[in-house]
Amino acid sequence: MDFFFNPRGIAVVGATVKPKGGLAIVLNLTRGFSGGIYPVNPGYEEIAGLACYPRVRDVPDPVDLAIVFVPAPQVPEIVEQCARRGIRRIMIESAGFAETGAPGKGLQDRVKKIASAGGIRLWGPNCMGLVDTVSRHVFSFVSPSIWEEMLTGTVSLIVQSGMLSGGFLVDTMSHGIMGVSKVCSIGNKMDVDECDLLAYLLDDPETAAVGLYLESISHGPRFASLCRGAPKPIVVLKGGRSAQGAEAAMSHTASLAGNARVTSAVLRQAGVVEAEDFKQMMDLCRTLAMVPPAPPGATGRTAILTYSGGAGILSADFLDRLGLETARLSPRTTEALEAVYPDWMPVKNPVDLWPAVEKNGGEKVYRTAVRAVCQDPGVDAVLIHVFVGGFVSGLDLEALARESREHGKPIFLWLLGSRREARTFHLAAQSAGIPVYRELFRAVECIAASFRPARGRRSPAVP
Amino acid sequence: MDFFFNPRGIAVVGATVKPKGGLAIVLNLTRGFSGGIYPVNPGYEEIAGLACYPRVRDVPDPVDLAIVFVPAPQVPEIVEQCARRGIRRIMIESAGFAETGAPGKGLQDRVKKIASAGGIRLWGPNCMGLVDTVSRHVFSFVSPSIWEEMLTGTVSLIVQSGMLSGGFLVDTMSHGIMGVSKVCSIGNKMDVDECDLLAYLLDDPETAAVGLYLESISHGPRFASLCRGAPKPIVVLKGGRSAQGAEAAMSHTASLAGNARVTSAVLRQAGVVEAEDFKQMMDLCRTLAMVPPAPPGATGRTAILTYSGGAGILSADFLDRLGLETARLSPRTTEALEAVYPDWMPVKNPVDLWPAVEKNGGEKVYRTAVRAVCQDPGVDAVLIHVFVGGFVSGLDLEALARESREHGKPIFLWLLGSRREARTFHLAAQSAGIPVYRELFRAVECIAASFRPARGRRSPAVP
Repeated sequence: MDFFFNPRGIAVVGATVKPKGGLAIVLNLTRGFSGGIYPVNPGYEEIAGLACYPRVRDVPDPVDLAIVFVPAPQVPEIVEQCARRGIRRIMIESAGFAETGAPGKGLQDRVKKIASAGGIRLWGPNCMGLVDTVSRHVFSFVSPSIWEEMLTGTVSLIVQSGMLSGGFLVDTMSHGIMGVSKVCSIGNKMDVDECDLLAYLLDDPETAAVGLYLESISHGPRFASLCRGAPKPIVVLKGGRSAQGAEAAMSHTASLAGNARVTSAVLRQAGVVEAEDFKQMMDLCRTLAMVPPAPPGATGRTAILTYSGGAGILSADFLDRLGLETARLSPRTTEALEAVYPDWMPVKNPVDLWPAVEKNGGEKVYRTAVRAVCQDPGVDAVLIHVFVGGFVSGLDLEALARESREHGKPIFLWLLGSRREARTFHLAAQSAGIPVYRELFRAVECIAASFRPARGRRSPAVP
Repeated sequence: MDFFFNPRGIAVVGATVKPKGGLAIVLNLTRGFSGGIYPVNPGYEEIAGLACYPRVRDVPDPVDLAIVFVPAPQVPEIVEQCARRGIRRIMIESAGFAETGAPGKGLQDRVKKIASAGGIRLWGPNCMGLVDTVSRHVFSFVSPSIWEEMLTGTVSLIVQSGMLSGGFLVDTMSHGIMGVSKVCSIGNKMDVDECDLLAYLLDDPETAAVGLYLESISHGPRFASLCRGAPKPIVVLKGGRSAQGAEAAMSHTASLAGNARVTSAVLRQAGVVEAEDFKQMMDLCRTLAMVPPAPPGATGRTAILTYSGGAGILSADFLDRLGLETARLSPRTTEALEAVYPDWMPVKNPVDLWPAVEKNGGEKVYRTAVRAVCQDPGVDAVLIHVFVGGFVSGLDLEALARESREHGKPIFLWLLGSRREARTFHLAAQSAGIPVYRELFRAVECIAASFRPARGRRSPAVP
């Protein structure tokens, strides 16, 4: 599989000087790939300053990968030429195969047969290839403007949708909250599939969590077994759960979506976190890549520190809905909080800090409260509501991160604030290693995902 | 009720020169209220440049409202003084009443008795009063920094949480996507409750939709009857649905949260849209305030125009999950789309426009597609996926709004894009009257809310 990620030389079949995908592939390579780049097109001598070769057989050594972006009917012939030239990895990014119906399916089968006879592994077709922000290997016709937004992270993705390695990726990275490591767009996955790539990413030192958008799961048992044994968190978003969605999946990536309930049950048993929407998948992924695995026995009993009774109540409702407990505070924690509370106010969880802050100032109250709940043996996680620009400006992010690490209690922040200040705070918290959410339910969903039993596997107590 | 919103003069009992709530109330009044402002405090001659009066009885005429922000134990005496001075509306913003337990409850009951004997209507206690961005009447101890973010809109709120009229409001308005009209924070609602205010807002010409965050519903039958007869959409977010949330609600606003299922059933029958989270409530409200009511018989059959097969599939899944249909396109629509599609690609809904755009350019394809689906009698709504910075820059927002109006088909946009460009587009679409969402499921939730049967009441066909 590594030749797909780190080839020594690449032939680009369908390279062009016109402002189309075949040019974008070449430009993306020149931007970050240090191996040999060999455009193939009989119509040009040079593309983007690189020598262009008339046929596949003319490209020099070493060439480990061909990226193919020619009209679908020409693809079988190109694959044949690659086989003859000894190229053993082909990424077909052209569309027009099984997703278009019977004739396209016939074409796809022919390609597969040729590849198989030539000992070739195929990635695609009908896909956007690879974006690797760490090695800077972008093997894709994605618009080169993606380089302006490139942001490295530790989440890798395997997706059956070009958007997730194109527009969505630009959206995600440009907000500065979340970067990615490798994004693999696999399209019709006629050969290389989610299992091959998942196995590769589970071993990849640059990947801390894997998110998958899938329209079908090709080999259920192998996939489930990979997930069960995974040393990293896995999040799956499954498209085509409904009849109308499944019909669309057939004409998108020729996917048989399968029974949604059965799929869910299998995924759950395999310890996978199921996502429901694109951005939610990313929030789950960044959380799981960031928050250390829960220690054995931790069930997600959560202390809520808030400045708003209403938000405290809704947090408790959300915890309950997702099967988590609003933690019962120990006598010691209660005592510590009583010391900063006004007399008339009883200490409870959700911990409403507003009156205490009015009495003693934000800095002292937050320091006291965070330490108390982090030390409490009945607390597994801390959810802090933050409004920036207001009285909680006393919140010290470095101290927060320290308390969290020292006591092994993950801290999650729900953030409100005026646009500019909230963004500055968001970025600062993220760099301090504390995940931030802008919607309250999303914050609680991410807490819940962090305490799924399956995550215990990563803990030192379970070999 | 109008004296609470538009009094001629206001006494501020508990006004102070110290940087506390009692000063904020005065500063907020001087910023936007053109009637008489009478700070009351025996300790000062002047507050914020205004003459200060030692006792309530000293304030000049006319005085229609007293805002009270003194420690709870002093409140009964103040209410007594107001009664004697002939002030018939009091907004008590101090906390320390029924929400703190039995002694506070006793205090609250005493206040209520005095008010009732004096023919006084009470707002609060334990609340943040009123923020009205249209009249610029801010009768609240909310930080005067809120003025920097003031953004007028047509959604009004009734909330049992100070945050929603403070930090949350700053967050909401500062993003520039959504303004508000009146925000009424009602706290323990010992007298004026959600029914009184809902009745007022349903008649208010500055209010197009009402959102409520409630921890309890005081008079179920009256509330349900108001909702059933409402000429405007109503969205309710109910806190304290879980046992742990309900317990917290008791110590927040002394609310008996009631049975969540029963409440849901009653609200649904009364045509209320139920929200689950704070920002989601705001998205539902802004949608319903913006999108005209569905014509009779429209069930929300949705045409999905996308550049991403994956996003199309998930949209279809979400529509199905919320009981809406992915529209079946008419032969005429199919024909119109075939004229811009490449030959190999069948036309289906979700309508994947990417290959058509590659062939014919974004402008022509979007114009053709939007017109075709808007004219289709089998289509009730249009969901368009937009990536800004990419190939759909040809999307003409004014033309979109025109087609939508002309054919009476609401258009909803799901937006991705690089941070800066996406924001610019978002604001432009919003001004053109087309609602935009950043999460796909949220977009579909808002479509679903727009087609709830109860909304038909606003249509001209139903008197």
